[in-house]
Amino acid sequence: MDARGGFEPTGEETLFEGRVITLARASFRAPNGESFVREIVHHPGAVAVLPLHDDQSITMVRQFRAALGHTILEIPAGLRDVDGEPPIITASRELAEEVGLAAGKLAPLCVFHNSPGFADELVHVFLATDLHSVDLDRQGVEEQHMTIERIPLESVVARIDRAEITDAKTVLAVALVQARSRTS
Amino acid sequence: MDARGGFEPTGEETLFEGRVITLARASFRAPNGESFVREIVHHPGAVAVLPLHDDQSITMVRQFRAALGHTILEIPAGLRDVDGEPPIITASRELAEEVGLAAGKLAPLCVFHNSPGFADELVHVFLATDLHSVDLDRQGVEEQHMTIERIPLESVVARIDRAEITDAKTVLAVALVQARSRTS
Repeated sequence: MDARGGFEPTGEETLFEGRVITLARASFRAPNGESFVREIVHHPGAVAVLPLHDDQSITMVRQFRAALGHTILEIPAGLRDVDGEPPIITASRELAEEVGLAAGKLAPLCVFHNSPGFADELVHVFLATDLHSVDLDRQGVEEQHMTIERIPLESVVARIDRAEITDAKTVLAVALVQARSRTS
Repeated sequence: MDARGGFEPTGEETLFEGRVITLARASFRAPNGESFVREIVHHPGAVAVLPLHDDQSITMVRQFRAALGHTILEIPAGLRDVDGEPPIITASRELAEEVGLAAGKLAPLCVFHNSPGFADELVHVFLATDLHSVDLDRQGVEEQHMTIERIPLESVVARIDRAEITDAKTVLAVALVQARSRTS
């Protein structure tokens, strides 16, 4: 079986080009010959960074999210909006810009597709340790109003368990750090 | 500070209504008075189920994902497309429909927003144990061609580490089960 599982793309039409996302209608032929269309969202991809301090606390940001209509608590992140920039460089830049931190060690933690049901967004997640302070340099109106919160890892875990923290990249990064710290 | 962090919604215009997602342009006023717009995607939400067998293996599905253009390995999941249906009921139904399993125990594992940067999709994830077989009842062309794979939990973890499994809900559910099994 090939990577497409016998499905063949037969065309794609752009429905709307936004500032970040592009909506398209893609058509396919299934292995049984059936033709079908799906609306899909193209996204440039993103990076996220879990800044874990030596005292086992995490620097997080509280940011207004237009799609949700309220603020949420999440780890620093940003779009891959610079052509050809390696994810680890984007991650390092976002860490400085959003929360004023530089990492002595920045290690890949995970790569994930947020919502393969309708979007091609891919997120590269990094674990940042050996942290020290640098200047902030915030971009965009949501970032200007962002607040920084430094929270013990165990409190973050408790808030995830109570569904007070629901951001996928945050839940995922924290769970992975927890799972791995226990195996090492 | 209110839940909106001082941001005020000032209007929303539907740009495109699809079969599953709706694209809209929403406008807001920031705390400093600045007006801005964001393209956002409305999504009905979804459920996902991690079926964990007594022998510590997981039943997964390999399914063609139009947005990615290829098949991926993921845990069973489905849209919340029945009005008012509690997520745990949808989860139970998807588990039967997609992989022919019923769970003696179906416990909430996590609730997460996949991509708060542009979409309001919320996923309820459940852990299914005490599993037994029931009849399949697949919906839609991708599900018709779906294949089932039962894989040891430790192999799933290794594939996540090698970025061979990249589906957010799957990575997240597996990491949470791993993290929790080590604390108990």
